Amino acid sequence: MQPSEKALVPFVSVDNMMRLIHHVGVEQMITQIAAQIETDFKRWESFDKTPRIPAHSPHGVIELMPTSDGEAYGFKYVNGHPKNTSEGLQTVTAFGLLADVYTGYPTLLTEMTMLTALRTAATSALVGSYLAPKSATTMAMIGNGAQSEFQCLAFKAMCGINTVRLYDTDPNATEKCAANLQGKGLRVIACKTPEDAIEGAHIITTCTADKKYATILTDNMVGPGVHINAIGGDCPGKTELHRDILLRSDIFVEYPEQTRIEGEIQALEADHPVTEMWEVMTGKAKGRTDDRQITLFDSVGFAIEDFSALRYIKRAIDGTDFFEPLDMLADPDDPRDLFGMLMRAG
Amino acid sequence: MQPSEKALVPFVSVDNMMRLIHHVGVEQMITQIAAQIETDFKRWESFDKTPRIPAHSPHGVIELMPTSDGEAYGFKYVNGHPKNTSEGLQTVTAFGLLADVYTGYPTLLTEMTMLTALRTAATSALVGSYLAPKSATTMAMIGNGAQSEFQCLAFKAMCGINTVRLYDTDPNATEKCAANLQGKGLRVIACKTPEDAIEGAHIITTCTADKKYATILTDNMVGPGVHINAIGGDCPGKTELHRDILLRSDIFVEYPEQTRIEGEIQALEADHPVTEMWEVMTGKAKGRTDDRQITLFDSVGFAIEDFSALRYIKRAIDGTDFFEPLDMLADPDDPRDLFGMLMRAG
Repeated sequence: MQPSEKALVPFVSVDNMMRLIHHVGVEQMITQIAAQIETDFKRWESFDKTPRIPAHSPHGVIELMPTSDGEAYGFKYVNGHPKNTSEGLQTVTAFGLLADVYTGYPTLLTEMTMLTALRTAATSALVGSYLAPKSATTMAMIGNGAQSEFQCLAFKAMCGINTVRLYDTDPNATEKCAANLQGKGLRVIACKTPEDAIEGAHIITTCTADKKYATILTDNMVGPGVHINAIGGDCPGKTELHRDILLRSDIFVEYPEQTRIEGEIQALEADHPVTEMWEVMTGKAKGRTDDRQITLFDSVGFAIEDFSALRYIKRAIDGTDFFEPLDMLADPDDPRDLFGMLMRAG
Repeated sequence: MQPSEKALVPFVSVDNMMRLIHHVGVEQMITQIAAQIETDFKRWESFDKTPRIPAHSPHGVIELMPTSDGEAYGFKYVNGHPKNTSEGLQTVTAFGLLADVYTGYPTLLTEMTMLTALRTAATSALVGSYLAPKSATTMAMIGNGAQSEFQCLAFKAMCGINTVRLYDTDPNATEKCAANLQGKGLRVIACKTPEDAIEGAHIITTCTADKKYATILTDNMVGPGVHINAIGGDCPGKTELHRDILLRSDIFVEYPEQTRIEGEIQALEADHPVTEMWEVMTGKAKGRTDDRQITLFDSVGFAIEDFSALRYIKRAIDGTDFFEPLDMLADPDDPRDLFGMLMRAG
């Protein structure tokens, strides 16, 4: 017995996601996802927003990140286990789902480890396009793990970066990142210290994974005029920047209710002023206002970014073979006759 | 390129779930899931408990129900759209996931529309085995929709019921339920009124789907000594019983924090006394204490029941072919080299 069409959920495997990315192109796909994120941030008030729902353990965290715009509903499952790397596993794995609010039926299931890397880079570069100095050409990339190449290419594609200065506490990570970026149109400079990495950088991206209060950047390292894109401080007890940098910066966030719990600003008073990026994008609030200002994007990753990425994928796979139908929903001919459907399958 | 084993998540489709149910047997599987639920309720305090996270719309609700015992993490996605039936769709569809708390990696993805029907019936009959009169042989089944046959078979298997009296506002539903129960070892009586259905019944199960404050049972219909298994009142604004019945009953619940929002007792004061079923199962609280007492299980469905069902399925499919491996997790050889994995797939 064939399940009905409504019972079949399009599923994008890791393999199909990679095929799709190669089909579209990495930088192109990041740019297109960023455009969807910008569109959705500009209609911020039409979304149900809720901080993600975490399940913490001594080993890491598992989170559900739901949101809805009243027509579609999406959520992402994502874990964060920094200790995984030393055991040959990913720190972060993720998958996501879209559903139709009108029927409650899922309409897309997809891997989101690859997709999260793209949407995180897309969000960073989108925010960078509003906040970074217009003449920026050099980015320091501190932390050369799984996210680093995506960040570098996103800032190249969307913010005019032509040079990246790499640093990681593990030289092997820097070497890997540098090798991966060969032939991608960027000047890549491997650095031995964070001080060296930020030399002449107009944009500083921090993306490290230790779950602790770390100090990747100290106050005296950050000169006037730079844009800091702080990715790695993204859960309680995990920050990357010295408090004094925060106090000298104008701070921009996705969703304050979540960022105050998870972001760099957990180190500040609960009423420390921050600006929401959707307000910058709609013109309700100002972004960068002068050349000497330090702008800081305290990024933690928000459900709407995943929603935008999911909707992008749903559109992108339409009419292609980058997905397979999954028999995930029981859909008897008579909806009240679930038992009869079961008996007839016997 | 073949994904590594860790990247593959066992997936139980609807078709495989139905094959598994036939392999085990409906009543046997309900009984086995009930045993798992009882085991887990008896270690109630080892679970992270949180009310489910709902996304309400005018059309229905989509909910995520997470829980964890510190070793495994599980959640269910479930919608509730009563208007779906009239459009040829299921009121409730669901799927669920188990993950390993230590790594954060998913370990099972499964359809849960069928499985939810089994676990709901298993929970009802498990609670019935503690609260219903020991000599109960007759159950009134009010509401003859998708859940009804599973309820009848569960109470047959676990509570000694040999006669069911069916009633639904739609005679076609009753006819469908009666036809499905033919040859299943139950005496089945189709009734034309709710009053007729509860005649001589020791257990009254209500399971209707309208999203409103309905009054399926009025006070004068319920005599002393019965056990009421109230399934259908399970979200804000949706109840089935007249308030006066609640006031005459001893009320038992799964998780008061959730039931006071979603269950029949939303009609009562917030401090109205209720007993938690896990306390009855562990002997901390009393169940039925006399023959004339009306016991009421105000059931809304709780995440731990899904967790028990998911763990049961994970065990049941081990070594069988009732699942397929799903390429859902990106798992590069070097976990920091997600980009390299992507490039090599090109």
